[in-house]
Amino acid sequence: MSRTPILALHGGAGTIPSGSLTPELTDAYHAGIRAALEAGHAVLRAGGSALDAVTETVMSLEEEPLFNAGRGAVYTTAATHEMDAAVMDGATGRAGAIAGICGPRHPVLAARAVMEQTAHVFLAGEGAMAFCREIGLEFMDPAWFGTERRLDALRAELARRASGAADTRSDADRHGTVGAVALDAHGNLAAATSTGGLTAKTPGRVGDSPVIGAGTWADNATCAISATGQGELFIRVAAAHEIAARMRWGGQSLAEAADDVVNRVLAPIGGSGGLIAVDAAGNLALPFNCEGMYRGFVGADGGFRSAIHREDWRVRQALSR
Amino acid sequence: MSRTPILALHGGAGTIPSGSLTPELTDAYHAGIRAALEAGHAVLRAGGSALDAVTETVMSLEEEPLFNAGRGAVYTTAATHEMDAAVMDGATGRAGAIAGICGPRHPVLAARAVMEQTAHVFLAGEGAMAFCREIGLEFMDPAWFGTERRLDALRAELARRASGAADTRSDADRHGTVGAVALDAHGNLAAATSTGGLTAKTPGRVGDSPVIGAGTWADNATCAISATGQGELFIRVAAAHEIAARMRWGGQSLAEAADDVVNRVLAPIGGSGGLIAVDAAGNLALPFNCEGMYRGFVGADGGFRSAIHREDWRVRQALSR
Repeated sequence: MSRTPILALHGGAGTIPSGSLTPELTDAYHAGIRAALEAGHAVLRAGGSALDAVTETVMSLEEEPLFNAGRGAVYTTAATHEMDAAVMDGATGRAGAIAGICGPRHPVLAARAVMEQTAHVFLAGEGAMAFCREIGLEFMDPAWFGTERRLDALRAELARRASGAADTRSDADRHGTVGAVALDAHGNLAAATSTGGLTAKTPGRVGDSPVIGAGTWADNATCAISATGQGELFIRVAAAHEIAARMRWGGQSLAEAADDVVNRVLAPIGGSGGLIAVDAAGNLALPFNCEGMYRGFVGADGGFRSAIHREDWRVRQALSR
Repeated sequence: MSRTPILALHGGAGTIPSGSLTPELTDAYHAGIRAALEAGHAVLRAGGSALDAVTETVMSLEEEPLFNAGRGAVYTTAATHEMDAAVMDGATGRAGAIAGICGPRHPVLAARAVMEQTAHVFLAGEGAMAFCREIGLEFMDPAWFGTERRLDALRAELARRASGAADTRSDADRHGTVGAVALDAHGNLAAATSTGGLTAKTPGRVGDSPVIGAGTWADNATCAISATGQGELFIRVAAAHEIAARMRWGGQSLAEAADDVVNRVLAPIGGSGGLIAVDAAGNLALPFNCEGMYRGFVGADGGFRSAIHREDWRVRQALSR
């Protein structure tokens, strides 16, 4: 292997009230982050591709009901789920995205199938569902995606709207997202993002996750990015592609470009959130402009790190190679 | 007025076989381009906003069955129409986009309503249709959008696929799009794009038109862009935002950035098509890497120009002011 593989993930960002996180729940989030890092890093350690690694990482996060993607997706006003996902391969510049689906167990696999099995990049709605059925993706019952916690969140939000009370929800609950970025031993970059959208969102709303250049981007010449936050603002500034463009045309470092976009472009216009980024040299950036971002990474030393707020990272030593 | 207003439009790009264009049809295309330029330029001459001008221009193109947007939209494999549109305001950085709708007479007005009447940027599919109904947009019968010419194109394409024959269709017929960009007297930029998609496309396919940063972009600091062509490739390179980023971070001129992206980024990967662009200084660029692009502009001299292939512009002198 010529390069030390690097992997990072996020599980959503926003105001995550420390009071709402019991020690048990905190441990569960760290465990979910670790499990997903392990799934993705195993691919990289075995010499697999960044594309496969981010796919595996996101599949693990989609399977964990704590995160708003796949199982555990939030509910729309119609008490349905609408999931979006995207994947981009920095080695080839190919991308796939899907929006407004409910059925496929792993929306990220639907996005990847759009990339690998069609001449298209982006499928949405009923047509996207028909494609998922046609290619035989694994489907689950709508009920499988639901959790009591998300249903409570929907009921509370609908009651709040009816009463006219102020919105005090955690941003991370309202618009969680999961994502992963990786650099593999071959020097290739990839990114993947998956989301259940916003609790009580308008049906049909598409956020930044499946918008290539907004919530997801990968190009071997610059970086791989997966974002989470107020998606509308990320679309309006083409957040992910803006970071790549500043590196390529402005000579900025990954850290400088990622920090600028999150804190000096998005924050001033109300674009609460964060993102994870890795460049072709293996540098990592995980900036966020809000209270917390569920996040983790495996860096050059092979140690597994996870964090939620701005506290110290929880570290577990490298797995044996 | 501090600035001379500038307006440009396109009505699709690709291989437009000269043989298929009778003198009458050629004249009809020029007339359609002129009518749309007049609709948009009247707004600008009256001191109106770039945003209103591009909206009016695109509405005129949507109403003309010759162009693949609104009335005259192509058919999907299911013999239905699926229209996409987007609008972006360079003065505020706000944007609106809509995908997979059939019913609203003017898809560009649906995109603008998303921008102005929701907290969202992008609505797709059934949810987007429900929004259009809810806000009372003018709806037309599905049959109103159809034309014999587009139905013939669908029948011919389905027959071709069944026979296994090679695809000899005009690109512009397969994936037409309309769009407009403007600089107004106040120095503000705006862009709008609208499309009926691909003839015999997979239902649910979303091209670059409604993807902010791919087919549509506007930012007063750089430029306004509307693209047309092989949408998948425009998404993969974030074509519109790439031009803005090269101007802002790479110091390129509008002409240099637009030409590079069309001819040196898109062309080598099969991204056939073109785009129209105007910058804050009133410079225009209308590059395309294929045989022709239906296009027109009103520049600083107030003359109305239109062209299809690389022939000389047809010019009509400035309207009285």
